[in-house]
Amino acid sequence: MNPAEKTAEAAFAVILGGGAGTRLWPSSRRARPKQLLALGGSESLLAAAVRRAQAFFGVERTLVVTAADQEEAIRTAIPDLPAANIVAEPMPRNTAAAVGLGAVVAARLAGPDAVIAVFPADPFIGDEESFGRLVRLACAEARETIVTIGIRPTHAETGFGYIRLGERLPRTAADPVHAVGGFVEKPDRQTAEGYLASGDYLWNSGMFFLTARRMFEETRRHLPALAALLDAAVAAGGADELKKVIEARYPDAPAISIDHGIMEKATGLRVVPGEFGWNDVGSWAALTAVRPPDLRGNVVLGGATLIDGDGNIIVADEGAPYVGVVGVRDLVVVATRDAILVIPKDRAQDVRQIVEAAKKAGRHDLL
Amino acid sequence: MNPAEKTAEAAFAVILGGGAGTRLWPSSRRARPKQLLALGGSESLLAAAVRRAQAFFGVERTLVVTAADQEEAIRTAIPDLPAANIVAEPMPRNTAAAVGLGAVVAARLAGPDAVIAVFPADPFIGDEESFGRLVRLACAEARETIVTIGIRPTHAETGFGYIRLGERLPRTAADPVHAVGGFVEKPDRQTAEGYLASGDYLWNSGMFFLTARRMFEETRRHLPALAALLDAAVAAGGADELKKVIEARYPDAPAISIDHGIMEKATGLRVVPGEFGWNDVGSWAALTAVRPPDLRGNVVLGGATLIDGDGNIIVADEGAPYVGVVGVRDLVVVATRDAILVIPKDRAQDVRQIVEAAKKAGRHDLL
Repeated sequence: MNPAEKTAEAAFAVILGGGAGTRLWPSSRRARPKQLLALGGSESLLAAAVRRAQAFFGVERTLVVTAADQEEAIRTAIPDLPAANIVAEPMPRNTAAAVGLGAVVAARLAGPDAVIAVFPADPFIGDEESFGRLVRLACAEARETIVTIGIRPTHAETGFGYIRLGERLPRTAADPVHAVGGFVEKPDRQTAEGYLASGDYLWNSGMFFLTARRMFEETRRHLPALAALLDAAVAAGGADELKKVIEARYPDAPAISIDHGIMEKATGLRVVPGEFGWNDVGSWAALTAVRPPDLRGNVVLGGATLIDGDGNIIVADEGAPYVGVVGVRDLVVVATRDAILVIPKDRAQDVRQIVEAAKKAGRHDLL
Repeated sequence: MNPAEKTAEAAFAVILGGGAGTRLWPSSRRARPKQLLALGGSESLLAAAVRRAQAFFGVERTLVVTAADQEEAIRTAIPDLPAANIVAEPMPRNTAAAVGLGAVVAARLAGPDAVIAVFPADPFIGDEESFGRLVRLACAEARETIVTIGIRPTHAETGFGYIRLGERLPRTAADPVHAVGGFVEKPDRQTAEGYLASGDYLWNSGMFFLTARRMFEETRRHLPALAALLDAAVAAGGADELKKVIEARYPDAPAISIDHGIMEKATGLRVVPGEFGWNDVGSWAALTAVRPPDLRGNVVLGGATLIDGDGNIIVADEGAPYVGVVGVRDLVVVATRDAILVIPKDRAQDVRQIVEAAKKAGRHDLL
């Protein structure tokens, strides 16, 4: 394969492995973010994302961009990921900069026409075969423009941004591709119901497919401070110099999401609508979507004991005390070595109130 | 004081400090029974019983009878109790034998006419002043016969035995004493409601007042195997010989309660009715009776965090993980270092199901 061919065909997965969240507290912490939890089974969400990407893009072209202080945890959690394929941000600077780093590495390895496929690390994907077909389609379209995969909504979710479908582009029936009609912010309940009823809106999955060249062009146009970093990084002589450039210039990178910083401003975007058991596992209540509940609707993990309950989510993490639950309904009980959460399923988002309380009480060890 | 006077006046508290229970699991265990829990505040139920008895009967005449394997825990928990005042049973033999041992010690120290006042270690007593007045009255009556204190029922409890009031005896208005009309077993719901409505029934508190002599006489009549032990123990030369006699003969003592073995068969009993904030703390749900709940009916102990809940009982024992509870109602959440219980308040009795499950799972460390 000559360099030109290599460039024309190359595609890289850029998995955004950073980010922390407290929505799955107490299992998720600063030092153990959601993507490192084995919510879907025996592998963590990040490990699943890496496995899917390695199968599709190849081991060498599967990159994980993450904060330096999570690098070690990721190395430990995913031993199959070559150390060289972890791209460490010196500090968190949101997703625009992280995607930029991915584009830099791809361009240095395979030239600027390499496609990068950007995947958040933390959604669960139930139907990997369907997903793979859409990724293949999106990568092919990405030779021409920026492509995203949108999720067909299953309910009037107010916690996600949406993508308005534009005209359908002339492709085969098996390859549905639309122009992006626009990105819209998280809607209120009524608006979300309208979106759902219309059939014209998709959830924004945060997956984007574009060439490194296009990423650099859009960055120059919309985020010049980041572009300076990326240009210097692409031009850096070797791995050591690259690292020095990133460390020196990353503090000046704008902390902005790829959505706000680039995607909402770029034109000519396309979207591939999909349904593939996608779930962002945004709260404990979502666990029933990724783990099959028992006949009475309970998900019980980690050897907890539930007697005579319905619709509960009971989780005992490794090292947690013995958990015994009797006679409750639609309740979330999560125990770790050092913290316990009890909250109704329909209030699972309010876990943040407990995290705030722990913070105010000076329990930084629990965050 | 000459020996005759001493005998005529002597009265001993015999606190039954043995016994284990799982009704307050996971806080209560074999090795840390309910009476050692500080449910009422900073002191354990047993410590409170000892404190009350020492104030009334004197430190030297306050005995605690307990199983040998709980002796150490009791010594540690109640340093104010002289070691000589702990009477250790070589093995559990229910309450008739335990009261017998108390009578032996009292008779050896002060002669057979000493009164023994038998108190279970584990009820909570809210109004200690009223209680003290009734104990004084019961001790005075005990010079003549066997006396018990009965609790005026506040609800149709099916978990207790009852005492039927007999005729009121001629005493002052301030000293209500009745003949015992009979002991009755734990009733069903309908019967309990009838008892409550009639006003003729009291809860059996398990408190008995009688002379050591009467205890020996009744034992000879109804429990001859136990009487042989008690006679030999009274006759033993010194502390060492006493210990040997007990150890040699205790295995043969009948395992029967003082209620079934003696009280239900003895005649001429009297009962003093009382109301003094008595509560047997028979389940976690009872905790609101002994700890003042907050404005929304919650009892939160041990630094647990409850946000927006009503009518809950949340307990974090020493060494437990951080407990965070949001938005629940009428729920019991108890966390210890190694176990967690979550159960609705109105099912608190079903904690035994979890204990059984832990046992079946081989988790004997949790029992």
